[in-house]
Amino acid sequence: MPDPITRRGLRSKAGIISAAASLMYERGVAATTVEDILVASGTGKSQFYHYFPDKNALIIEVLSHQLAVILEDQSRFDLDSWDGIVGWFRALIDRHESWWGLHGCPLGSIANEVLEHGEPLRRGAADTFARWESTLTAALEVMRGRGELVGTADPAALAEAVIAIIQGGYLLSSIKRDPSPMRGALLAALGYLASYAPAAEGQVDRLQSRLGR
Amino acid sequence: MPDPITRRGLRSKAGIISAAASLMYERGVAATTVEDILVASGTGKSQFYHYFPDKNALIIEVLSHQLAVILEDQSRFDLDSWDGIVGWFRALIDRHESWWGLHGCPLGSIANEVLEHGEPLRRGAADTFARWESTLTAALEVMRGRGELVGTADPAALAEAVIAIIQGGYLLSSIKRDPSPMRGALLAALGYLASYAPAAEGQVDRLQSRLGR
Repeated sequence: MPDPITRRGLRSKAGIISAAASLMYERGVAATTVEDILVASGTGKSQFYHYFPDKNALIIEVLSHQLAVILEDQSRFDLDSWDGIVGWFRALIDRHESWWGLHGCPLGSIANEVLEHGEPLRRGAADTFARWESTLTAALEVMRGRGELVGTADPAALAEAVIAIIQGGYLLSSIKRDPSPMRGALLAALGYLASYAPAAEGQVDRLQSRLGR
Repeated sequence: MPDPITRRGLRSKAGIISAAASLMYERGVAATTVEDILVASGTGKSQFYHYFPDKNALIIEVLSHQLAVILEDQSRFDLDSWDGIVGWFRALIDRHESWWGLHGCPLGSIANEVLEHGEPLRRGAADTFARWESTLTAALEVMRGRGELVGTADPAALAEAVIAIIQGGYLLSSIKRDPSPMRGALLAALGYLASYAPAAEGQVDRLQSRLGR
């Protein structure tokens, strides 16, 4: 049986991470102090420093927490199918029809801010994005295995491009408060994925080959 | 003849903006204090507050300054041609082969940080991105006029999508220190643009229509 004190400890650690994630997503990382997080999570300073030696250790956990939120939402879609991908993309666009609680990508907006704050944070962000990409890579590998993508398609490269494009859509749609940039960006992402469906074309390939495809 | 004191004033205002832009791009906006900017630009506090009532007023000028840097670089390419677009995209990819002085998109990385710091800054960022987009919109209009894009192509929507995608490429390539996400994102952007070239295809259109194209 798990030790009840340890279980309580895990709950309070999770509470700190969750409170920190909300504050950092809404206000930004720099604008969120340890004091803010203690108040929001109802924990004491000594408890905080017991779990997190410094703010950076907490930020890495916050990035993981934000990814978990994204993956939970994403699990509604069967991403190993065109229908699932289109549904996921539609949901990303529709989310920008309202601004309630939306402050850019849950992961990317925080990652952007900590990117220049030392190698451990940059690596933490890179690892978190790699985990996100791996879920899409796995789905695209299934599609390729079923012949829904051609054999020359590179699931990891496609997944990486799609996640990058989603980041751009989030940023510009957030700046403009308009779903239009996200829609345009995802139209391009979908077209790129679809260009690896068994029916191919000429002009697109010719131009893309000049960028190294 | 211009008043030499006014000219000196304009120079010192430009010096403050330029120093602030470098610091904010390298360290982030929150991590850059007015004191840092005074030291870096060699100006006094009273002179600073003569030009900028507060840090927000300066940030809006910094966004414009960053756009000017982008447009200066972009002017090397004739963006109203496929060759020019491919050249521009290649340069954006090649820039990520080395990390010297690169801290994400000169404009987008700063815009991302100030996005949640009040409506004036969000609007300032939106206006600055709109000015960037308008340069690409104008180029795509020329291509459409020459029949290099079909009549149904929407230059403003395409420009917006391309700028969004570039943002995503910058963010993920910066996080990973790898040009690969920028390349993948721009392959998708190019394919999207090329799908409006006079030779069209079927599968891409059919899927994209489900996102509202």
